[in-house]
Amino acid sequence: MAGDLKNEPIVSRGTEPFIPHLSVDCVVFGFDDNQLRVLLMQLPFHNEWGLPGGYVMSEESIEDAARRILKERTGLSGIFLNQFHTFGHPNRVKQNFPEATLRRLGMSETDLKWLSARFITVGFYALVDYSNVVPAPDVFSLSCEWKEIGQTGPLIMDHFEILQKALETLRLQLSYQPIGLNLLPEKFTMPELQRLYETLLGKKLDRRNFQRKVESFHILVNLKERKKGVPHKAPFLYRFDLENYKKALKEGLKGSW
Amino acid sequence: MAGDLKNEPIVSRGTEPFIPHLSVDCVVFGFDDNQLRVLLMQLPFHNEWGLPGGYVMSEESIEDAARRILKERTGLSGIFLNQFHTFGHPNRVKQNFPEATLRRLGMSETDLKWLSARFITVGFYALVDYSNVVPAPDVFSLSCEWKEIGQTGPLIMDHFEILQKALETLRLQLSYQPIGLNLLPEKFTMPELQRLYETLLGKKLDRRNFQRKVESFHILVNLKERKKGVPHKAPFLYRFDLENYKKALKEGLKGSW
Repeated sequence: MAGDLKNEPIVSRGTEPFIPHLSVDCVVFGFDDNQLRVLLMQLPFHNEWGLPGGYVMSEESIEDAARRILKERTGLSGIFLNQFHTFGHPNRVKQNFPEATLRRLGMSETDLKWLSARFITVGFYALVDYSNVVPAPDVFSLSCEWKEIGQTGPLIMDHFEILQKALETLRLQLSYQPIGLNLLPEKFTMPELQRLYETLLGKKLDRRNFQRKVESFHILVNLKERKKGVPHKAPFLYRFDLENYKKALKEGLKGSW
Repeated sequence: MAGDLKNEPIVSRGTEPFIPHLSVDCVVFGFDDNQLRVLLMQLPFHNEWGLPGGYVMSEESIEDAARRILKERTGLSGIFLNQFHTFGHPNRVKQNFPEATLRRLGMSETDLKWLSARFITVGFYALVDYSNVVPAPDVFSLSCEWKEIGQTGPLIMDHFEILQKALETLRLQLSYQPIGLNLLPEKFTMPELQRLYETLLGKKLDRRNFQRKVESFHILVNLKERKKGVPHKAPFLYRFDLENYKKALKEGLKGSW
């Protein structure tokens, strides 16, 4: 049941303790209906929203912890996460969760003390195919939903700052790496790819320049097949050329030094 | 005296305790004699080398900790550090320091236990003007020296991996951001800048293509002044155009989307 913390000790998971003062937060981006969205959790304690996050077990790498946490909190598995920044300001967790609410939920004194300490959090982001994922909240959350970027409202703690830093990282990456794999469906149109870039960059792009530039990267394969269900002059469908895409990820798009 | 740990408790600094399981490591790059170098510390315990690193105080941000640690370990201050990656594999600190040596140095049981725990480390890198810094080791180290990249030999724990990751980050940044400020002296020649890029990329570059490309970025000012002490056809001196350099850092070098 959502919100029932009685049987879920925080300072350990079964017999394996969590590392104190350390957490992991995941920024999961999806693209749907020409909008960039982020996956948020509704907290049971106070009707607020935050990023899916959790703690690291004593024998677990931070990457494994991020994957486990994402699976537990959202039901999503097999997602490739990228570490992008670690947030360690001493004031970032002031009143992590309101004590009165935690007590009402049956939290032990040990857990209360553990939770109210300072936490350093390692941020990961993921790009996922929106249509392939079915978010499912765990017992810690009331719900798990996609929210449009720019429409999230305030988030708990420094989660809004973490989200902005993830976006900033993506935007900078656009200038030297291709983006779109995992975020777009397997087959997509040029206007869909352009809309994704526009959303990430926060500005309109010229259609012809965009197409010319993207084609110069040789990361796309034109499937010579037109999108169905579009009445007039349906756009061509493309897929990514995986080999060239991965090469571009590794070497940079314009690595012409 | 180097190596005297008796009066330096590890688990706290004065009355303020360190956060357990968390450390910071700094990769400081300098460029001299056409070589890229990294600042390393010689450990007193066992004649080995590692990155300057340390722990985070309970009321300190990780960025402040990195700056403080660098100052304490190397005597360097006012250095701009960039966080680049957090290393959290559970096996990264197996036998952090040999127990027998630590005991011989007068380490307490508490400190021994604290030090032998698992540590997650946040990696920072810095680019500094080699000629302006005078490294000075603190009581924890035998010496603090510049070592040429590729000639460091093995480093303690996963410090070699941390160094490689910092280099990889710099290399990727070369494809979308200018590099050289802080690393080169205020006035430098085109061959010096080219050599820096070649060292970071690990390959030779064509002289004319390099010059044309760099000039297209508009980040350089030709001082119309030739390098002194060079007998024949002395190269021109340049400086960075700070305004354009900073703009390029923010927007990416080829941000023509």
